Amino acid sequence: MSTRSYAILGTGAIGGFYGAKLQKAGVDVHFLLRSDYEFARDNGLQVESVQGDFTLPEVNAYRSVNEMPRCDVAIVALKTTQNHLLPDLIPPVLKDDGVVLVLQNGLGIEDEVARIVGVDRVLGGLCFICSHKVGPGRIRHLDYGNISIAEYKIEYASGGVTPRMHDIATDFETAGITIRLEPDLLLARWKKLVWNIPYNGLSVVLNAQTDELMQNAHTQRLVKQVMLEVTAAAAAYGRDIPATFVQKMLDDTAKMTPYSTSMKLDYDGGRSLEVEAIFGNTIRAAIDAGVAMPQVDMLYRQLKFLDRKGQSTV
Amino acid sequence: MSTRSYAILGTGAIGGFYGAKLQKAGVDVHFLLRSDYEFARDNGLQVESVQGDFTLPEVNAYRSVNEMPRCDVAIVALKTTQNHLLPDLIPPVLKDDGVVLVLQNGLGIEDEVARIVGVDRVLGGLCFICSHKVGPGRIRHLDYGNISIAEYKIEYASGGVTPRMHDIATDFETAGITIRLEPDLLLARWKKLVWNIPYNGLSVVLNAQTDELMQNAHTQRLVKQVMLEVTAAAAAYGRDIPATFVQKMLDDTAKMTPYSTSMKLDYDGGRSLEVEAIFGNTIRAAIDAGVAMPQVDMLYRQLKFLDRKGQSTV
Repeated sequence: MSTRSYAILGTGAIGGFYGAKLQKAGVDVHFLLRSDYEFARDNGLQVESVQGDFTLPEVNAYRSVNEMPRCDVAIVALKTTQNHLLPDLIPPVLKDDGVVLVLQNGLGIEDEVARIVGVDRVLGGLCFICSHKVGPGRIRHLDYGNISIAEYKIEYASGGVTPRMHDIATDFETAGITIRLEPDLLLARWKKLVWNIPYNGLSVVLNAQTDELMQNAHTQRLVKQVMLEVTAAAAAYGRDIPATFVQKMLDDTAKMTPYSTSMKLDYDGGRSLEVEAIFGNTIRAAIDAGVAMPQVDMLYRQLKFLDRKGQSTV
Repeated sequence: MSTRSYAILGTGAIGGFYGAKLQKAGVDVHFLLRSDYEFARDNGLQVESVQGDFTLPEVNAYRSVNEMPRCDVAIVALKTTQNHLLPDLIPPVLKDDGVVLVLQNGLGIEDEVARIVGVDRVLGGLCFICSHKVGPGRIRHLDYGNISIAEYKIEYASGGVTPRMHDIATDFETAGITIRLEPDLLLARWKKLVWNIPYNGLSVVLNAQTDELMQNAHTQRLVKQVMLEVTAAAAAYGRDIPATFVQKMLDDTAKMTPYSTSMKLDYDGGRSLEVEAIFGNTIRAAIDAGVAMPQVDMLYRQLKFLDRKGQSTV
């Protein structure tokens, strides 16, 4: 049984799912909730999962971090559009020797977290999962579910695989979650962007699912072009992503069950989009390295337009 | 009174409007129609115009070019998506010394027409007008209306201002249409693309009117970036479009009455889009000159996706 306690900052499709799985495996978990607080306090959490449905009738639910105990691991699973809250949310829930595990998409988030808690207390995690919230305290898990974790080091230097990565992996694996230990957080982040940037962006702008984008020769080509802009920017940071990786992403996505990206689900639901974390930060990093990303830039500006337009009508 | 006869190939928002204006001024005009043929034969044409409404109770209406007389000027005013029909449509309506005036958007159309009728019998025309068809034989003219015309020369060499340009201009001016005589068709075409490419493309992809695109800082910037890709390609053909022209386009559009572009009207109406004439031909011309247009290319591919998607559901 794990002796580590976990604070889940953001109990949605990601934080709710992984937190519930950990608690179900006997781990000490504490959930921060906003709109779902009353429901979770009274009814716990429900998970409908391809790996088997389950209900946790009782969870440690909080609506304020000041009511939460200090934990060994704080999992950041908010939407990145809420990350301006992190300086208030993280310190109260973290033990003096606790660490933060960032389970968000995009680039540069660990930098922000390190400025709050210090450089040596941050890990990044990349979730490969299809899940979404279907109601208060109710999470549906459709496919996949593994996580890659890696150490954050200053300026995203490669951090290698550390004992605490193994410790956290043990807790997740006890809960039935496959964990990959990655020695290089930045490489893992860029690799994930190779998929996230074209599919999230184009699915929103063109109101399309992944299969539609891959069945049309023009968008299939466009997806690849955008992926190559991402790998060119990664290369400027010394992270070489081979052409075979790009081709595998394309092939796998073409074969994948038709899928609405998380950004499309957000857009269709009238919620704000994670444009800055996934697109804005990436473009700014590329510019810092002297690399232009004209097609990613266009997607970024199109999304900024739609994000604002969408919000103004909600 | 003009002694020149005009064949209007395509009696829509452009051909219908200008043809009606010419006939109203006493010019001999012959209209090719498809779906509106019966209506126009029985009822003529109606124009609702900011310059004054008028009805032509009788017009020379035809449903086949083989029934039409040979004319001095054949005006090509089809949608460019129908241009594969031009080899059949033009020769029967053109006198041996007749000329073709292409009133379409996009690049390279005059090349196609010259292959049909010969190099020295083609003029290009650029319409600056807001008009659309509102019913069978009924055209609404909302704003503007002037035309720039120019000689086509092989490989789009500058053709100067010729007597026959003056002749055609006289007929239009008699009909109350302002005509600009342009010495360089290719420069005029590239200048029009500076506006058409960003606004037509983004208005469809983002479901937006011109004012919305200009009010959002991200799309305003994007419009300018796309314009600069167009001017860079024009420069590769020796046509220098100054930065002041780009800025004036932006400023004028920001001040203009909110406007749905012709491509957006086509898209909203479930009609096919003029993607190849405006975008595809331009990108291919740029590639031939060794110039990349990544953002225009992205718009092109997005439109090709939407065009196909739209058509499949109509």
